[in-house]
Formats: sequence, structure tokens, C-alpha cells
Amino acid sequence: MSLAVVGANLDGARVGLRAVDGVIVALGPDVEPEPGDEVLDGSAHILLPGLVNGHTHAAMTLFRGYGSDLGLMEWLEQRIWPAEGRLDDDAVYWGTRLACLEMIRSGTVRFWDMYWHPEAVARAVQDSGVRASVGFPLVDGMDPERGKQVQAEGERTLDALAELGPHITPSLTPHAIYTVSEPTLEWAAGQAADRGLPLHLHFLEIEDEISGCETRYGIRPAELLDRVGALGPNTVLAHGVWMDQPELELVAERGATVVTNPASNLKLAVGRIFPYEAMRAHGIPVGLGTDGAASNNSLDLLAEVKLLALLQKHRQRDPKAMPAEEAWAIATGAQAPLLGGTPLAVGQPADFVLVREQAPALEPGHLVANLVYAATGEVVDATVVDGQVLMRDGVVEGEEEIVARARECARRLGVTDERSSD
Amino acid sequence: MSLAVVGANLDGARVGLRAVDGVIVALGPDVEPEPGDEVLDGSAHILLPGLVNGHTHAAMTLFRGYGSDLGLMEWLEQRIWPAEGRLDDDAVYWGTRLACLEMIRSGTVRFWDMYWHPEAVARAVQDSGVRASVGFPLVDGMDPERGKQVQAEGERTLDALAELGPHITPSLTPHAIYTVSEPTLEWAAGQAADRGLPLHLHFLEIEDEISGCETRYGIRPAELLDRVGALGPNTVLAHGVWMDQPELELVAERGATVVTNPASNLKLAVGRIFPYEAMRAHGIPVGLGTDGAASNNSLDLLAEVKLLALLQKHRQRDPKAMPAEEAWAIATGAQAPLLGGTPLAVGQPADFVLVREQAPALEPGHLVANLVYAATGEVVDATVVDGQVLMRDGVVEGEEEIVARARECARRLGVTDERSSD
Repeated sequence: MSLAVVGANLDGARVGLRAVDGVIVALGPDVEPEPGDEVLDGSAHILLPGLVNGHTHAAMTLFRGYGSDLGLMEWLEQRIWPAEGRLDDDAVYWGTRLACLEMIRSGTVRFWDMYWHPEAVARAVQDSGVRASVGFPLVDGMDPERGKQVQAEGERTLDALAELGPHITPSLTPHAIYTVSEPTLEWAAGQAADRGLPLHLHFLEIEDEISGCETRYGIRPAELLDRVGALGPNTVLAHGVWMDQPELELVAERGATVVTNPASNLKLAVGRIFPYEAMRAHGIPVGLGTDGAASNNSLDLLAEVKLLALLQKHRQRDPKAMPAEEAWAIATGAQAPLLGGTPLAVGQPADFVLVREQAPALEPGHLVANLVYAATGEVVDATVVDGQVLMRDGVVEGEEEIVARARECARRLGVTDERSSD
Repeated sequence: MSLAVVGANLDGARVGLRAVDGVIVALGPDVEPEPGDEVLDGSAHILLPGLVNGHTHAAMTLFRGYGSDLGLMEWLEQRIWPAEGRLDDDAVYWGTRLACLEMIRSGTVRFWDMYWHPEAVARAVQDSGVRASVGFPLVDGMDPERGKQVQAEGERTLDALAELGPHITPSLTPHAIYTVSEPTLEWAAGQAADRGLPLHLHFLEIEDEISGCETRYGIRPAELLDRVGALGPNTVLAHGVWMDQPELELVAERGATVVTNPASNLKLAVGRIFPYEAMRAHGIPVGLGTDGAASNNSLDLLAEVKLLALLQKHRQRDPKAMPAEEAWAIATGAQAPLLGGTPLAVGQPADFVLVREQAPALEPGHLVANLVYAATGEVVDATVVDGQVLMRDGVVEGEEEIVARARECARRLGVTDERSSD
């Protein structure tokens, strides 16, 4: 299986790429397709690395717009949790396929998921052709006894996910320190270490997490994670907006990665803008996520990266803060190696996108600035993962079926409005 | 000239529309095309009013991404102002065409512009088929003598714009109270009143405007505008983020409209999020704008409306703040009659858009929530203004030429990067 494309790089110079069996084998100004190569047309395109979505609940596309504009607990208790109780493998599969469709359409090649029915998530990821870290949200309601059942289910899931193909990285995904007891957190950290898998959890998204932790444990959330062995170079902390100075130092020392989700933080009104300048000062690897579609409501990282940069300018009251190049590096995962984004280079996976050079939003040039500040996912014309063309000329195979099946599942779950149920 | 379309409304119910000579003559569940009608296919589409962009410098598409991430004065003094000095009618024409192309592609039917070479702007608007309020930025450097020349030029421009066709509303556009002397402001207000034209100016975008005004005049900016007669029901105030309580009351009493530009305010780090809840409490009509592409860098109101709503949730620390319906009303101009947005109704102008019902971002329903929080301009498939189909099936006639000519103009002005100059 070989694939070749000739396009332009960010400076407008010709660049050819050849991939064999999913790996880039040649890249440079003089690289040409060879006989037998599948050829992807890049003649009016910019060749870019794919984007990495560091925090998702992919199948929540089914709940997109359901109960928007409610208070957080009302939304969760009256809408989301009851609906999640009705989920089955089929619904999660098609919800995840819809999420993968959106991500492929907007140039995302890899994402970090945490959701129910993770084997269905993993099948959808494999069938879509993208890559994902997949985990089952551990929740024991702060009850170590219930935690033991959750652990047993967690082990079974990890074993099953390990069988599910090369695009899936199983991960341990305890929900948060306020929904998972200390023994279960410790178990998760131990499993991650034993199996060499990443640990991915919500962390300091909401301010109440601090007082809750201090009341229960007498320490700050990062100290708790450290005590149970959950803070290390294989840890992805989603959100992290409420870290204090000692926590920044501890997280930096342990080498954990923090993923910011700007739209979700604003939509759920968490009360604080991600303190990126502090992360940067401490050398903490930072990635970008959309969170689930129910709290964003989009999975388009090219829209999200604009918000990432703009909010930092606002927060620091400095238009020079978070220049476009830095935001772009974060969106491609280049600042956080754990997230698994890969650069365009020989020997690297053939994961990349083609962007339309003549998209009006990218005119008249200044590509990095305009990818960050002006583009949305619609500028992406082709998405390639593992040498497979998942979108070509703006078309993803099976798109209509995916949309129809996901809509059917949402109707079955009773989460659509009248319009969709007629 | 008659046009007919049958689509669905926001509730998914069938709706047919017929327009004759640019005016909606029939609208309802049973309306069908009649013999001789041009028929627009809306079978998989939602029929919506067009969006209204309340503040632009359209031709600044030419400077999109030029000098991004600089401090405000460095950006203006070293990049934008020298480049603007090299502008000519041709560049402004094609820059505005590019802006109109983006706006048509993302469902905007009317915009409020303030830019140099306004006759070229107006020609571009007419040729694009959209509608705009067009004005020449009055700037006299606080020098009333220079102001007299500017006034003479302003009068000539207003006379010329009045000739330029039915889609153009000439307007008086003094730049701001810190660049225009009091006599020139007063002249502008008088001209607007005499000619029955709107007045559109920057107002309290930057905090320094307050101290500058207090030092020079001993009063607050809104008081100055009121003293010169510039604050009335025909006034559009762009930005307004730094209004204090008495100014809110005064602006409300005079009936002026305020247009918020969320992305631009963040990007230029003006330091404060638009105090929408105060505007609402005072009953001030509010509209939405993108500002120029150089400080956004997009003209896509479907992206902007998300930011509008999310920032209000953050500012008020309440996920229920600015629900989707309210944000949508603002984006369509329904909260600010002066801006000229029109509802879908018999007797109204045939200005509307068709949105793809099966766009992944709009699944699985909850259309208003997902138009606001999930969609970008790419969901728009057709845009109609004055009964003319400006985009059909995602295609705008002449798109390639517009992009190429705008790029040429940017090169000629020396504002592209190396990539674009090769």
C-alpha cells in the first residue's frame, strides 16, 4: 500500500510526500509519485500535520444541543445522566462515528476519549480510520466497595480494548477526584503503570473541586493525585483551570500533560480562563481539546484554536500573548508529546491533512495566522491517517449513512426535539 | 423576476416561499412554486433569515493576517496605516469583493462598513449583490481646520454614494472621538440628521478613550456624543465595552444601537467583555459584528455568534446567560431594527439563507442551539438577497476570480508574506 501527494508547505514551496504501509518514506521538494502509488491531488493545497483533540466524549454528539443553556447540575441530573442510562453499544457506536466524521472533516487525526461502552467507541474509531486513546469513565460515587466492581469492569474493558486494533490506545480514565474514591484512583494509577497505559482524567475544571478535596482529604487535588501515584509523564489532565502555584510546580515536576478546552470552559461557565502563561512558565506540556459535543457544541479544532489564542490575549490583556505559531503548535500536539501528534517527517506515521490554498478565509496568505484566527474546519479538503485517505475532495465515504444512523439513535434515546422526531 | 423555494422551518415543518421583484409575496406550509418561477432547491434545507454584520471594515480582508500578534499601536503604525496609505480604488474594490464573498458564503446579507474609498466599497457591494451601509471614515486628527477639508470630502462622498444603487445606504462614519475633533463630530451629526442617514462610529472600544475624553472635554464619551447631537435612534456605536452606568442610561434614552464585536475585542485585548446584561437591562438595541478581517480574522457570523454567547456565560459565570435563542436574535439583527435585518414575512425583502439540514454539526437537531454553538458558515448552502440567488449549492459565481484579484491587490500593496509573493 503506497500513497503519494504533491502539495505546498506553509511557505508555499513544493513538497512531495510518499508513504508505504502507513509510514512516510520520502518527503521533500523533489519527491514524486512512483509507479503503483495511489495519488492524492494536492496541486492547490497545503500539506499539514493532522490535529490532535486532547479531550473528548465523542459519542455525546448524540446529545448535541440537548438541554443547552441549563445550569450544570440541572443539565446533568435532568438531561444527560438519564439519557446516558439509556445508552447501548449501537448508540455509542453511531454517536462516535458521527464524532469521527466531524473530526475527519475538520482535520483531526487523533483524539483522547472518555466514554461509556468503550468497546463500541473503539470499533467506531477503527471503522472510521482515525486514531484514539479510549477509556471507560471510572465512577464509584466515592464508595470503595462499589469501586471494586468498577475495577473488575475496568480490567475486562482494558483487556478487550487491547485486542481492538492498532488505532486504539486503551487508557485508564477515572472521571474525577470528586466521583472516584481514593482506593479506585490508586488502582487506576497502578493499572496504568503496570500496563504501560496513559491515565486521563478531569482535573480542576470546577472550583468546588478544591474545597471538596480539602474537606475530604485535607490536601489540594494535585497532591491527592500525586499521593495515589496518578501524576506522572503518562497522565493527561483535562482542564486544569483552577491549579494554584504549588500545584503547577508539582504537575510540572511529575511531567503530566494538561489539556485545555476553551469553549467548554466558557459554555459551562467554570469561572476562569486557562492560566496558560503559568503552564508555559513551568514548562508543562499543553494540548487542546473540544470536550464533548454536548458542552461545546462542536468538535472542530480549527475553530477551537482561535478561541485558545484569543482568550489568552484577553486574559493577559496583551494582543501579543499566544501568537498564532504557538497556538498552532498546541493544536497539532507539538507541545505535548504524550498526546501522540506526529510531525511530517520520514519515518513518522502518514497522518496528515490537505488544506485548500484558495479558501477565502486563508487569503491573502499569512497561513499560520489565518489557520488560527480565520479558518474553520471547512478549509480541510483531505484527511489521511495511517496512509489511508479518509476524506478526499471534501467527501467522506458513508457520510449520509452515519448522519442518518446517529439521528436514529438519538431519536431512540429520546433526546431530539420535535423537529427531529417527526 | 420571481423566485420560489420549498424548505423546512426551524421546527422541521414544510415552508414554501415565493418572491416577486425582490419582495416576499407568499410564505407558508402550502406555498408552491408557480409557472415561470426560478426554483431554488430547498428539499434538504432549513429556510432562515440572513445574518446582519453590524460593524466591518470589509476591504481589510487584504490585510488578513498581516502583522498578527503585534501590539495595537505597533500594528497600526508600522503595518496597517502605511499599507492603507497605498490603497487605491481597485484594491478596495477587490478586498471588499473578497469580504462579500466570505459573507455570502456564511449567510450574511447586510453589513455596516466604514472604510476608505467608499465608492469602491459601494461598487463591490452592488456587484456582489448583498446590502451595506457604507461610509468614509472621517478623521481630522483633532484638528478642526483639517476637519473642514474632511467635511468637504465627506459631502462629495455622500452625494456620490446616494447615486450608487438600491443596496447601498450611505452613512456618516466619524472614526472615533479621539481621532475626530468636536466640530467635525458635530458636522457629521448634522449631516446625518439633514440627510436622514445613519451615523456609525467606534465608541468605547478602548479604555483610554475615557481618560482622553475627560482630559480634553471634562465629560464622558457618551456625554460628548450627546452634546454634538450624535447620539440618537439613527446611531450605531461599535464596541461600547467601556460604558459606565450613566452612559448606559444616556445611550438607552437616546435610542442608539450598540454593536458588539467579540472576537476583535479579545484579539486586540481591549480588556473587558461586552457588558451585555447591562445593555439588556436598559433596553439598548444590540447587534453583532465581526469588525475588519485584520482584527478577527474572519467575517463568519455563525462563528462569531458562538463567541458572543460563550463570553456572556463566562462573564456572568452562569451557563444560562445568553441562551441560544437570544444570541440568534442578535445575529439576525432582530434586536436592533436600525441595522436593517428583515424577518421572513410577506411584504419583507426576499433576503434569506438555506442551511443544510444534514450538516454533521447540526445533528441530531436542536437547531437554534446548534446554529449558535456548533455551526460555522459552512452549513450555509444558499444565500439570497433581494430575490437574487447569490450562492447556490455552496457555489458563488466568480469566486476564483475574486480570490485571485484580491490576492494580486494584496501583493501589489506589499502586505503578503513570501509564500504569496512567489
